[in-house]
Amino acid sequence: MSGSPLLNELIEALRCLPGVGAKTAQRMAFHVLERDRAGARRLAEKLGQATERIGNCTRCRTFSEEKICALCASASRDATLLCIVETPADQLAIEQATGFRGRYFVLLGRLSPLDGLGPNELGLDLLAARLAEGEVREMIVATNPTVEGEATAHMLSGIARNAGVRATRLAHGVPLGGELEYIDRGTLAHAFGSRQNLEG
Amino acid sequence: MSGSPLLNELIEALRCLPGVGAKTAQRMAFHVLERDRAGARRLAEKLGQATERIGNCTRCRTFSEEKICALCASASRDATLLCIVETPADQLAIEQATGFRGRYFVLLGRLSPLDGLGPNELGLDLLAARLAEGEVREMIVATNPTVEGEATAHMLSGIARNAGVRATRLAHGVPLGGELEYIDRGTLAHAFGSRQNLEG
Repeated sequence: MSGSPLLNELIEALRCLPGVGAKTAQRMAFHVLERDRAGARRLAEKLGQATERIGNCTRCRTFSEEKICALCASASRDATLLCIVETPADQLAIEQATGFRGRYFVLLGRLSPLDGLGPNELGLDLLAARLAEGEVREMIVATNPTVEGEATAHMLSGIARNAGVRATRLAHGVPLGGELEYIDRGTLAHAFGSRQNLEG
Repeated sequence: MSGSPLLNELIEALRCLPGVGAKTAQRMAFHVLERDRAGARRLAEKLGQATERIGNCTRCRTFSEEKICALCASASRDATLLCIVETPADQLAIEQATGFRGRYFVLLGRLSPLDGLGPNELGLDLLAARLAEGEVREMIVATNPTVEGEATAHMLSGIARNAGVRATRLAHGVPLGGELEYIDRGTLAHAFGSRQNLEG
């Protein structure tokens, strides 16, 4: 323990961050106290504001401090494309990696009855109402390729069919830059089975 | 960018922490918003309090929210032993690794004229006054085993000699070029236990 109770409390509090153990928390505390108090004050302010004000968008359920998030409110996004993701983190990954200019719907989970996550918890009624508005032409299912994600995708395809909306799914296969030798058998078998024409 | 400006600001603010890049900052922000808002609120509070209230102990110069830190104020510490360290982080490492029950003096740096760090910046006048009080019998020099740390140790041994105080140095065993803060506890405890006379 250091001679400062407040410093000990700060080190302890830093451990709420994922992947931060005792030693890393110490290093972070000393770093900000010695070299970046302005940054620490700013972080304190933003953490306070974010935990206080960030809720969920009433339209797409992603994180938002407004009733309608900036992506749902933006007139420049294509309302005929709706991408379904499990979490706000997945949404951000797609925003950063692709040129997708449509809108999103965030499930905030995946179908998992044992964890008490059913259609109600995933907001599927809200999604059905969204599709019933008639604007969406294609629903892009981007749930994770896990057993639960696949079950969720299956249920989503039913909702799309009922609404007369075309449902698509992210392609599965060999990741770019991967080595065939080290890829798991399931992925390799799937990629082999759904091989495509090579265009010269 | 996510649909929440406040979330983007939180992610940006998290990057003030050492070793936290864009991807880690995202993961941290999503983690606390999804799973640990109470922890995040506590962290915000402690960061605010720490940057606001933690200054330096007027006696040993370590981090403290009081004028005199808890270690200097404690009657149960041995006032005849004074351990000199470069940083509060080094002090904490020694507290955690060894059974040292004496007191500390923190240089808040090391002799480094090119960086503008001379005897004044290291508080050596304060240290000399401390030794002149006559209570200290042994001064344990625990500066880092780097070129600058060795130069600092050399200067410290002169101060001890002038005050008629025995100066000792952490034993060899601490790898050269290493930083005390990151050395495993066993090595540090061993080096601390076999400290040797400092030859001026």
